[in-house]
Amino acid sequence: MAETAQQIADDLRARIDSGEFAPGDRLPGEPALVRQYGVAKMTANGALKILVAEGIAQARTGSGTYVREFKPIVRDAVKRLARSQWALGSSIWSADVEDRPRDVADLDVSEIEAPKWVARALGLNEGATVICRSRLYLVEGEPVQSAISYLSADLVRDTQIAQPDTGPGGTFKRLEEIGSAPERFEEDLRARMPSAEEAERLQVPAGTPVVEIYRTAFTGDGRPIEVNRMLLDAGSYVMRYRFES
Amino acid sequence: MAETAQQIADDLRARIDSGEFAPGDRLPGEPALVRQYGVAKMTANGALKILVAEGIAQARTGSGTYVREFKPIVRDAVKRLARSQWALGSSIWSADVEDRPRDVADLDVSEIEAPKWVARALGLNEGATVICRSRLYLVEGEPVQSAISYLSADLVRDTQIAQPDTGPGGTFKRLEEIGSAPERFEEDLRARMPSAEEAERLQVPAGTPVVEIYRTAFTGDGRPIEVNRMLLDAGSYVMRYRFES
Repeated sequence: MAETAQQIADDLRARIDSGEFAPGDRLPGEPALVRQYGVAKMTANGALKILVAEGIAQARTGSGTYVREFKPIVRDAVKRLARSQWALGSSIWSADVEDRPRDVADLDVSEIEAPKWVARALGLNEGATVICRSRLYLVEGEPVQSAISYLSADLVRDTQIAQPDTGPGGTFKRLEEIGSAPERFEEDLRARMPSAEEAERLQVPAGTPVVEIYRTAFTGDGRPIEVNRMLLDAGSYVMRYRFES
Repeated sequence: MAETAQQIADDLRARIDSGEFAPGDRLPGEPALVRQYGVAKMTANGALKILVAEGIAQARTGSGTYVREFKPIVRDAVKRLARSQWALGSSIWSADVEDRPRDVADLDVSEIEAPKWVARALGLNEGATVICRSRLYLVEGEPVQSAISYLSADLVRDTQIAQPDTGPGGTFKRLEEIGSAPERFEEDLRARMPSAEEAERLQVPAGTPVVEIYRTAFTGDGRPIEVNRMLLDAGSYVMRYRFES
């Protein structure tokens, strides 16, 4: 009895899990699947499409379908935002990918009227302005995350936070210098499919979701001091959180 | 000039964002889009498919395409796993959805040989057995999460943890009673598309990713005491983490 695309996908997935096909390996193509499983070309194609949709495999135009390489960035939230990280002048971003070539692109700093959700999150009046820092993070030349942070313009307009280069230790170190060090963080995460625009900006392969993180930083006396909206290529990241009972 | 499916999807998305179409509203169908935008039926259908793939809309067979209702479960990791939650006899699950009808289904408890990753995570020898607790969590009758927890069988075989009903305060309270209270947690999150089997079990709509969480619980002296692999319907959840700098 000929198998269905789903059955062939299940079989290929089991062979990937068993290690028969390793990350980066080329999977059998349509002709090989047709021969091996005795199915129509369309069924073979459907099986490969299922694996691509699950994010297990990646299609490369004109070359075939490959087992996806998952060499995740471990985004350790507690470690990366620890005072010891930024107080001594390191960047938060450097904590994520210590050992891989990394870059920041499309840096844009502007003063804008706070979007409603930003004003609400920062406890600002409607119409207040914010310094808005937008950038794209790259690892090994590939975009993996976009981020936009917002801070009250009245508070940071005259600091290096309003300049493209925030200096050693970045925004958090500068906030500390003006008596508004972040002491507490809250991160809200959602996973969803990207819009076409987001998929293009992050260059995520088809069938890959994104993780949207809203982070609020609070001072010791509970003032929200920064909000940051991050969009991560889910295929590139493991998010790690550590906490106590 | 006739518009493309992408342009129509962009326009519909903007109308949803503006509030013209609210969550749960029916979007214009193919015939309405054909009339309104002067495009072919296939283009109109393509636009709706884009919104479904993005998770913004949901197709209901024979009825049309609707703006997706997102009434998320806020999974506050720190709050739900706080000792004050389980020490007094509450369930962790009840912290997530205090005010909505919730249920647990397909509860299964068994003793099995530890899968390799479980043995590694719990620091057990190869071939050691574990008590394995598997269940499905429902909110308002809909499955939102599956979870399987693993604990050393030698440690918990003779406790209520090996019984279907773990009693008030659940597994963690029982661990405390045998001198192995969990004091520290680590959660690793990934987002990806579900396999066909996972999509069926969680009944996730097409185009909805899942969030996979591996949680390890440690005792005060650093022993890993429980690992739990959770699979969440990403469309139902916001994951919240709070921590200090």
